Amino acid sequence: MADEDSGFFSHQRVAILGLGLMGGSLALALRGQCAQLLGIDPDPAALELARQRQVVDLASANAAELLPQADIIILAAPVRAILRLLGDLPALHPGPALVLDLGSTKQKVLSAMDLLPERFDPVGGHPMCGKERGGLAQADERLFRGATFAFTPLARTRLLARNFASWLAGAVGARPLWLDAGTHDRWVAATSHLPYLVANALAASTPLAAGPLVGSGFRSATRLAPTPPNIMMDILMTNPENILEALHGFCQNINQIETLLAAGDYAALQEVLAHGAEQQLSLVAISEKGDLL
Amino acid sequence: MADEDSGFFSHQRVAILGLGLMGGSLALALRGQCAQLLGIDPDPAALELARQRQVVDLASANAAELLPQADIIILAAPVRAILRLLGDLPALHPGPALVLDLGSTKQKVLSAMDLLPERFDPVGGHPMCGKERGGLAQADERLFRGATFAFTPLARTRLLARNFASWLAGAVGARPLWLDAGTHDRWVAATSHLPYLVANALAASTPLAAGPLVGSGFRSATRLAPTPPNIMMDILMTNPENILEALHGFCQNINQIETLLAAGDYAALQEVLAHGAEQQLSLVAISEKGDLL
Repeated sequence: MADEDSGFFSHQRVAILGLGLMGGSLALALRGQCAQLLGIDPDPAALELARQRQVVDLASANAAELLPQADIIILAAPVRAILRLLGDLPALHPGPALVLDLGSTKQKVLSAMDLLPERFDPVGGHPMCGKERGGLAQADERLFRGATFAFTPLARTRLLARNFASWLAGAVGARPLWLDAGTHDRWVAATSHLPYLVANALAASTPLAAGPLVGSGFRSATRLAPTPPNIMMDILMTNPENILEALHGFCQNINQIETLLAAGDYAALQEVLAHGAEQQLSLVAISEKGDLL
Repeated sequence: MADEDSGFFSHQRVAILGLGLMGGSLALALRGQCAQLLGIDPDPAALELARQRQVVDLASANAAELLPQADIIILAAPVRAILRLLGDLPALHPGPALVLDLGSTKQKVLSAMDLLPERFDPVGGHPMCGKERGGLAQADERLFRGATFAFTPLARTRLLARNFASWLAGAVGARPLWLDAGTHDRWVAATSHLPYLVANALAASTPLAAGPLVGSGFRSATRLAPTPPNIMMDILMTNPENILEALHGFCQNINQIETLLAAGDYAALQEVLAHGAEQQLSLVAISEKGDLL
């Protein structure tokens, strides 16, 4: 990125549609780093909190009122809400504008972005961070620090949108990672969507009577289970094939463990478990490096 | 517990066999709260570190040297090592002595405790805390704070051993929970052993290529995967029936999710997932209260 771009983006007006955990955290992390922060959310309670905490410079439920003032539009909503907002955008903004989304799946979002008029310069984004509880009350300006910020370009994405994405990652303390939307959706099925389903099924299979013996290990393994269902359903509905493939691989592994345990073949079981242990340490080490292999 | 017991235990000499994460953390948490802390471990590096950090008053690899001085013997080793130590105990200690273990499964340990000569007063124990990495270097005097400390009595367990268990929980900041060994093993299969296997299978099923997209959710869901295999194999080998039953229930839940996702029955899927979310919140709330239902 050219140095002048950095100064360029700090003079732009940024609208964030959706002041939940992600949009709110992004706004907090961007405070003082751009000309104006505009926040749009349909929820009066979120708007009230955004004003109280001065999360944005201006907050409104009315996109038609604030959005036309923005040079850069960030869609921070569940995936299906992003798809609707992309459909509404041409009527709401005269353009030109950069458009970035923060949705958890990217293929359907990029298809919708591709339908935007030429006056928009769109790019997909997905920060690899979160909390098990959503909402602006949970927002944290440090949420993105050290996290990988995935970006998925379209063929039409111009250099300016690419440079904005890189600038944004740096501005919030994240590491940008560029990849195509199909690869993104296949990988997050394994690293994010499957872990949620497994955590949820694990909690569902544990009787309440066992609650007094729940310790830190169980809490960690099931932490994702209460992720807000509206966010998760949008993800499941926009990435089912990849999730089913990841589920299939997981079930093969769990069935192998079950078979070896039932047979009392502890030598083979220990080898299988040693592989899982190594894989976990390798995956975490790779994620901390943040590079593509 | 009578008040005089509290003073009584603070005048006893306590031997801890096994200076790993659990034994080391217990020693650190007990410093200054009993007459003498004796540490026994076969590993020279653990003994050296124990002396450097003054984890115990005396440390030795030779149980025959230190153990006879102890009034209270705490076995802090993997389960099958505990079973061996219980077999050796009558030759190593003239008695009388209280005997407590910290093993992760209880039925086989209690069967072995029941074979001890009458001069021993045994009771089973299992603190519901830990870290994914073992060893004395990870030991932390705060490890037990706020955790549930499960105790499983034998029919022969005398009031003194029961009072010691309650005193010990209080001395390290944990909440004592009394239950029978069969119930303990059935419940920890669900709250601890199954989550480990699931975390391990989850890591094993994730390709390294997806590593750059690993975020905090994946790290949390798979945190248990690299638990030291020697500890886990002892657990799996001493509790297979309960673990297989818990695995069976989990697989039913995961198969239900897979079926609904493949069928695109998102309304039913959302209901199933809402139940898992509720169950997780309820289980964590119960564990924080720490009472039996």
